[in-house]
Amino acid sequence: MTPYIIKNENALFYECGYSCDNGYFLRLKKEAFFITDSRYTVEAKEVIKNATVLQGDRRDLLKTVRKLLKGTKSLTINSSEWSLEEYKRLNKKLSTKLIEKPNFSQIKREIKSEKEVKILKKASKLGAQAFDEFAKFIQEEGIGKTERELHFKAENIFKSHGKLGLSFSPIVAINENAAKPHALPSKKILKKGDLLLLDAGVLYKRYCSDRTRTAYVDENFNFSKKQKFKNKFQQKIYDIVLKSQEAGIKKAKAGVRANEVDKACREVIEKAGYGKYFIHSAGHGVGIDIHELPVINTKNKKRLEANSVFSVEPGIYLPGEFGVRIEDVVRLTDRGAEIL
Amino acid sequence: MTPYIIKNENALFYECGYSCDNGYFLRLKKEAFFITDSRYTVEAKEVIKNATVLQGDRRDLLKTVRKLLKGTKSLTINSSEWSLEEYKRLNKKLSTKLIEKPNFSQIKREIKSEKEVKILKKASKLGAQAFDEFAKFIQEEGIGKTERELHFKAENIFKSHGKLGLSFSPIVAINENAAKPHALPSKKILKKGDLLLLDAGVLYKRYCSDRTRTAYVDENFNFSKKQKFKNKFQQKIYDIVLKSQEAGIKKAKAGVRANEVDKACREVIEKAGYGKYFIHSAGHGVGIDIHELPVINTKNKKRLEANSVFSVEPGIYLPGEFGVRIEDVVRLTDRGAEIL
Repeated sequence: MTPYIIKNENALFYECGYSCDNGYFLRLKKEAFFITDSRYTVEAKEVIKNATVLQGDRRDLLKTVRKLLKGTKSLTINSSEWSLEEYKRLNKKLSTKLIEKPNFSQIKREIKSEKEVKILKKASKLGAQAFDEFAKFIQEEGIGKTERELHFKAENIFKSHGKLGLSFSPIVAINENAAKPHALPSKKILKKGDLLLLDAGVLYKRYCSDRTRTAYVDENFNFSKKQKFKNKFQQKIYDIVLKSQEAGIKKAKAGVRANEVDKACREVIEKAGYGKYFIHSAGHGVGIDIHELPVINTKNKKRLEANSVFSVEPGIYLPGEFGVRIEDVVRLTDRGAEIL
Repeated sequence: MTPYIIKNENALFYECGYSCDNGYFLRLKKEAFFITDSRYTVEAKEVIKNATVLQGDRRDLLKTVRKLLKGTKSLTINSSEWSLEEYKRLNKKLSTKLIEKPNFSQIKREIKSEKEVKILKKASKLGAQAFDEFAKFIQEEGIGKTERELHFKAENIFKSHGKLGLSFSPIVAINENAAKPHALPSKKILKKGDLLLLDAGVLYKRYCSDRTRTAYVDENFNFSKKQKFKNKFQQKIYDIVLKSQEAGIKKAKAGVRANEVDKACREVIEKAGYGKYFIHSAGHGVGIDIHELPVINTKNKKRLEANSVFSVEPGIYLPGEFGVRIEDVVRLTDRGAEIL
């Protein structure tokens, strides 16, 4: 194995089960090191089993790294995670050759192990439970609340009152705010008859769930995919997006190219005449990072592999009117895509 | 003004009052641009008044940036915030000369405007109120709760039930966990007679508060700096840290070197014989970022300027036993340091 160095927090966690905001994982030919500063060494030593924990100067951990590199001919670094300034500090008069590999650590994680799939399944299950709990809250107390209040409530529900983390800050958007794919919560108040979009996920054992539902607000509020909107136009758009998502999931299996999954989603929306309102890619890998590989867009021609895990999430966004997005995370097998 | 480009989210916010995770602020000689993708353009256009919002290809915003750079001779970039990979993409066959300035955008923000000071004061006030609310919670319901439960409660209190953000995830640590400066919440249960460390802050109008208190747990629990520990050794250590913090704050005023403030803190602890247990720098700038300039450590010889805002936070950490840290944020004037 070529020696490599890791610094991104999630990538660190993947390597050794621990991370902090000032640390390097250094894999050399015969041994591995975790270099951090005095704020983190106590905890790092408790957790890390596959590397020797070394304490460096908080403001200059690279000094320790450079010492350890003596005698190492080449070292792979992820050029997407190293800043130019830090790279230059590492490389200054270094006799080790640095091999730049963009997304090096993301590529390592693209295919999930069975253990990871199990954790991701559990994360998705916990995420789905949180959707149900949030739906119950909307039924009972949601009407009259602002997006900000709903957002705060969603955060607490998805955190399972402290037992879980968030894979990202939930997106809670009413009517025209749902037309912004990444809307920030506003003071807009939820009313009966509104359209409500929720995009949220939990963090379980450091793995992400991710899901989006768009739903009609009334006394029977729920996040099932079978939604009945009073407004016929909203229903029409909803049905197109649902059909698009089903087409994407149906298309996905090991061996299919990533852009073919995107195309399967996009064709349904384009044929219905709303192609220009599907303004993002059809999906993204999900794992320790909420956005990882594979990328499911129009350009990625890579053949998808079994045990890759990614979202399928087409949407139609009508500025000033409303937006609809439906998202699930799937795990690929040779036979097809399993919704987690 | 030399043209420059910004990409860090907080730096973006500082430039134009808006940010997202995929955007560039480009200041050219005569005009400014905010380049982002279709997920963010609707909101960006609503908020940004000092730049033209342009929509680029989500996966390649730099294409748009490179087009805009035609005719521009040189461009300052913050080499600490650009990844090596992204820098290379920007720089490929570019006729504009890139001038690397590490911490370029942090340096711009080191001296706060009166408006910023006002916001930071309000943030600190709201942060202090949250400390009081959390103390009340400990008095009434804290005993018997785990660190994780206390951490979750602290998050909600500091978020002011959705009205504020967090400047960072609170550190809530009992006894020996307080000996880890950045402890993660565990299943350890709070008992009467314990030592409890809380390091937390709110985000108000996107500015951070930051404060640490170490306190004795009984029915009169509070976060005042006057603490009475039953354990005499804990009291001794506490008194040293308090004296150290007071010395640092007393030393701080415009014109004094950053390392002199660190030294003032460190000397008290060293003289008491615990120098090797004060394992971090004495403080850091606070603003939009929770850690910004100036750095208050043993090495920074820069003279501090009026309206710089930073933390003074000495600590003593006794591994396996307990830790004490006391932290306030101060604003510098020519006469001294004002605690926010």
